[in-house]
Amino acid sequence: ADRARILLSCPDRPGVVAAVSQYLYSMNANIVRMDQYSTDPDGGRLFMRVEFDLPRLSDRRRELEEGFARTARPLDMQGEIRYARERKRIAIFVSKMDHCLRELLWQWQAGDLSGDPVVIISNHPDLKDIAATFSLPFYHVPVTRETKPEAEHRQLEILQNYQVDLVVLARYMQILSTEFVSAYPNRIINIHHSFLPAFVGANPYERAYERGVKLIGATAHYVTANLDEGPIIEQDVQRVNHRDSVEDLKRIGRHIERVVLARAVAWHLEDRILTYKNKTVVFV
Amino acid sequence: ADRARILLSCPDRPGVVAAVSQYLYSMNANIVRMDQYSTDPDGGRLFMRVEFDLPRLSDRRRELEEGFARTARPLDMQGEIRYARERKRIAIFVSKMDHCLRELLWQWQAGDLSGDPVVIISNHPDLKDIAATFSLPFYHVPVTRETKPEAEHRQLEILQNYQVDLVVLARYMQILSTEFVSAYPNRIINIHHSFLPAFVGANPYERAYERGVKLIGATAHYVTANLDEGPIIEQDVQRVNHRDSVEDLKRIGRHIERVVLARAVAWHLEDRILTYKNKTVVFV
Amino acid sequence: ADRARILLSCPDRPGVVAAVSQYLYSMNANIVRMDQYSTDPDGGRLFMRVEFDLPRLSDRRRELEEGFARTARPLDMQGEIRYARERKRIAIFVSKMDHCLRELLWQWQAGDLSGDPVVIISNHPDLKDIAATFSLPFYHVPVTRETKPEAEHRQLEILQNYQVDLVVLARYMQILSTEFVSAYPNRIINIHHSFLPAFVGANPYERAYERGVKLIGATAHYVTANLDEGPIIEQDVQRVNHRDSVEDLKRIGRHIERVVLARAVAWHLEDRILTYKNKTVVFV
Amino acid sequence: ADRARILLSCPDRPGVVAAVSQYLYSMNANIVRMDQYSTDPDGGRLFMRVEFDLPRLSDRRRELEEGFARTARPLDMQGEIRYARERKRIAIFVSKMDHCLRELLWQWQAGDLSGDPVVIISNHPDLKDIAATFSLPFYHVPVTRETKPEAEHRQLEILQNYQVDLVVLARYMQILSTEFVSAYPNRIINIHHSFLPAFVGANPYERAYERGVKLIGATAHYVTANLDEGPIIEQDVQRVNHRDSVEDLKRIGRHIERVVLARAVAWHLEDRILTYKNKTVVFV
Repeated sequence: ADRARILLSCPDRPGVVAAVSQYLYSMNANIVRMDQYSTDPDGGRLFMRVEFDLPRLSDRRRELEEGFARTARPLDMQGEIRYARERKRIAIFVSKMDHCLRELLWQWQAGDLSGDPVVIISNHPDLKDIAATFSLPFYHVPVTRETKPEAEHRQLEILQNYQVDLVVLARYMQILSTEFVSAYPNRIINIHHSFLPAFVGANPYERAYERGVKLIGATAHYVTANLDEGPIIEQDVQRVNHRDSVEDLKRIGRHIERVVLARAVAWHLEDRILTYKNKTVVFV
Repeated sequence: ADRARILLSCPDRPGVVAAVSQYLYSMNANIVRMDQYSTDPDGGRLFMRVEFDLPRLSDRRRELEEGFARTARPLDMQGEIRYARERKRIAIFVSKMDHCLRELLWQWQAGDLSGDPVVIISNHPDLKDIAATFSLPFYHVPVTRETKPEAEHRQLEILQNYQVDLVVLARYMQILSTEFVSAYPNRIINIHHSFLPAFVGANPYERAYERGVKLIGATAHYVTANLDEGPIIEQDVQRVNHRDSVEDLKRIGRHIERVVLARAVAWHLEDRILTYKNKTVVFV
Repeated sequence: ADRARILLSCPDRPGVVAAVSQYLYSMNANIVRMDQYSTDPDGGRLFMRVEFDLPRLSDRRRELEEGFARTARPLDMQGEIRYARERKRIAIFVSKMDHCLRELLWQWQAGDLSGDPVVIISNHPDLKDIAATFSLPFYHVPVTRETKPEAEHRQLEILQNYQVDLVVLARYMQILSTEFVSAYPNRIINIHHSFLPAFVGANPYERAYERGVKLIGATAHYVTANLDEGPIIEQDVQRVNHRDSVEDLKRIGRHIERVVLARAVAWHLEDRILTYKNKTVVFV
Repeated sequence: ADRARILLSCPDRPGVVAAVSQYLYSMNANIVRMDQYSTDPDGGRLFMRVEFDLPRLSDRRRELEEGFARTARPLDMQGEIRYARERKRIAIFVSKMDHCLRELLWQWQAGDLSGDPVVIISNHPDLKDIAATFSLPFYHVPVTRETKPEAEHRQLEILQNYQVDLVVLARYMQILSTEFVSAYPNRIINIHHSFLPAFVGANPYERAYERGVKLIGATAHYVTANLDEGPIIEQDVQRVNHRDSVEDLKRIGRHIERVVLARAVAWHLEDRILTYKNKTVVFV
């Protein structure tokens, strides 16, 4: 309950770790875990995640944040404090396929996610019942080429109403506009059903079958303006062979997709991911 | 010593397995293992591999082959008999990197390959000593843009002199001409240092680093006229993360490459691979 | 619909494959896939699985079975014909944990299992609602040390009433008596939450934590009279590290358990498993 | 060249990270990476590894070490400073099998190990030539039940003469006495050819075959007085099936063994491993 995390990046130079840890010690915080990564110890950029416990945290947030601002300024740190208590609110976008949605809801119910799905949005009504099972509101927002701007407007409205922190595209199968994406920078996670950058775009399983690959994969990534080009968060693969039909690849792929997406979402919720140069730093 | 294998393909219809097994039984052969794969039981193409022991095989090869021809004709089978005793003769092409060469030679020495390297060819002299350690002839055939035709001519001459059955490109790093490739159809195996079709072409590790992938891989494939487009035999991957530099990816990749290439070579030597439609059927 | 499978074992000698395939050809069946395994081509035992399509199968079952009996006798084959149409009926035994149950029901609903859960039995009432969601009957049969014989009697009664072919212990956490086990030989599949034979018995995750292993696993096996000693069907593992608490191991383990159990159940339903000498032959 | 590492453990309490990083900052060192692990943030034990660059390190070692001692005392830190420049000296013990030895020497030659083999000791003369290829001294010290004390005395003498820091048992196949082990605490790494704690003791592949496991593994661990019971450093597994004979398991196992052992040795050489309660903390 008294746990918080600092995520930051700054120019790498001596004294950064000392400054942050000294500041936390002065607050009487206990560092639970501190991770850093430097693109280059000699003049590169430093990325850091610090997880710490601070007694009576809720009474001392202002003090903590002001102290951090004072520490950050001279070292050009960009960063922020996240509070474990403030569980992130998740919107899950789906289409007709249920496996990724089910996995997320199942892990949530099992207590494995440190955030909460608050709304499900779909361009089809098919998965309405699953939402009901978990007592979650379900919005059916149909999308056609013509109605897309209106539909996105409606979706953004829902996201605001539910104060959503993270959008998860759980096989949503629709491309979002640049405007939509820019409203949630590094806060929209998509699962692509291939091992990117192989099979960018449509029908990856069909194309994997045609090419005769011996492993198929899935990729969870943040959504950017360029389709399937955003920072990769997690990937995994599974072995297939010549006996596997396109249908088999899809079945096997479903298992990879749900696992990979759930991992990426869990890491985001635990503030383990930083991005730079269209890549991710994931402290696991 | 008395072991042989039949590799065949034919239109799928009832009676193929019966015909082959009946014929082998009539020869008093004992089937050790029979694998089939049909692209479609209803009108597709059937691929089959039969491994069997035949007493006094060396005296009965003519009888065996004539019998197979009689069996094959009415069912439109295309195939042939391979004799375990006739170990395939391998030429290994290398450039400067030694890891794939070492792995193959090491597995050969350990008795894990059912074929024999007989000659090593390189466009650089660097790995001459390794060849010497294993008492294998080493030919240094320099290749420049201008001398490539002559160099390939020289290489083909060497392959003929050594009666080579299989060419292994163990990080040879040179593109072979269409003429060269067509002289050894489905008998040249290359290791590409990426998870194809991701990162086709040059510098895959650099590009994997740039893209920020979370797994890197290697692909062994038969060489065809189109670079990196031939039938895939085997692929594998290993997990990497943001801390891994390009150099780290290369180091990790070396381990994947040598394992994947060695597996593909072993399968080829054991007659486990059939090709069709630019894909492989691998019976393992 | 017209698909069937023969599973058999017999002394290995020339002519077995020929006899079976000749017989199927005489019926005008088309062999889709035939797998064999011999413990020793010279005097060992041969295991075989043949999958085939036979036009108008339902009208010709008697003919098919009589023909097989005639083929089997002279070669001492033990085996039987299984019909894909006759989907196996499954009882799932659970206790309080839901992950294995959910996975099985989810895969069933997705159409990935070629059999059907028909009843759920538990010694606790906790998972009653899940059964209801899938419209499956749920029997709460409490078990104490004293009432175990009665409880098992009741359970066997339920199994008979529902004409159950396969019992799946989906983290049932109770030991079955020898009598119970012998009523369903090679037809009870258990998931053990360790990589057997490591951590036989109770509390494997606690013991894995104590020992400091770097991988944890799960094992699906047929249940025999000796606890955790039955033929292993499938195993898998996942990497863990010093940061993982016992709770983490349990969470990670849940994912391995459900995948491993579901794979074993699917293989059993597709008649892919034969047993001998307390081991399994799995044709996948 | 100016890189060093601090490995330490101490009671977990606020201020430890601050103290260490403040001290390093006061020396003008740049922290490249800092890892911590606490058994329990509330009253547990903290383990830490700090990698840092210090300009003109070789001139300032005394200053650095005295400063660290002053920092460590009030916080009850136990630890030490290791210098990347002081490459560890390795003795490799072998018997007749060459695969682990070859892998280590190959990785060494490829520049992947941050330490140096300086001597090879064997109870058999078989691998003498490999040592010669790498210009390494080879000592043949035969061991029988009767001569074991003398043999170990001779071995320890060699280790002292070559100022050995790390002993690697690369399939040495002999049990070391408690006296020998206690001379190199946490500095003897063994590769056991099973997935411990499964198949402790002799003939693990034979026993894995008998049990019918579906994965086989290998375990690298520090050697303690109790056979196969020391802290596990690394493990890995590979899939096998019913077709694999004991010989196949050994062949597949060789590949797992060499990879697992090489990883453990590399981590030890990079000072990534701490031990406590018969377990390892590995910062990778």
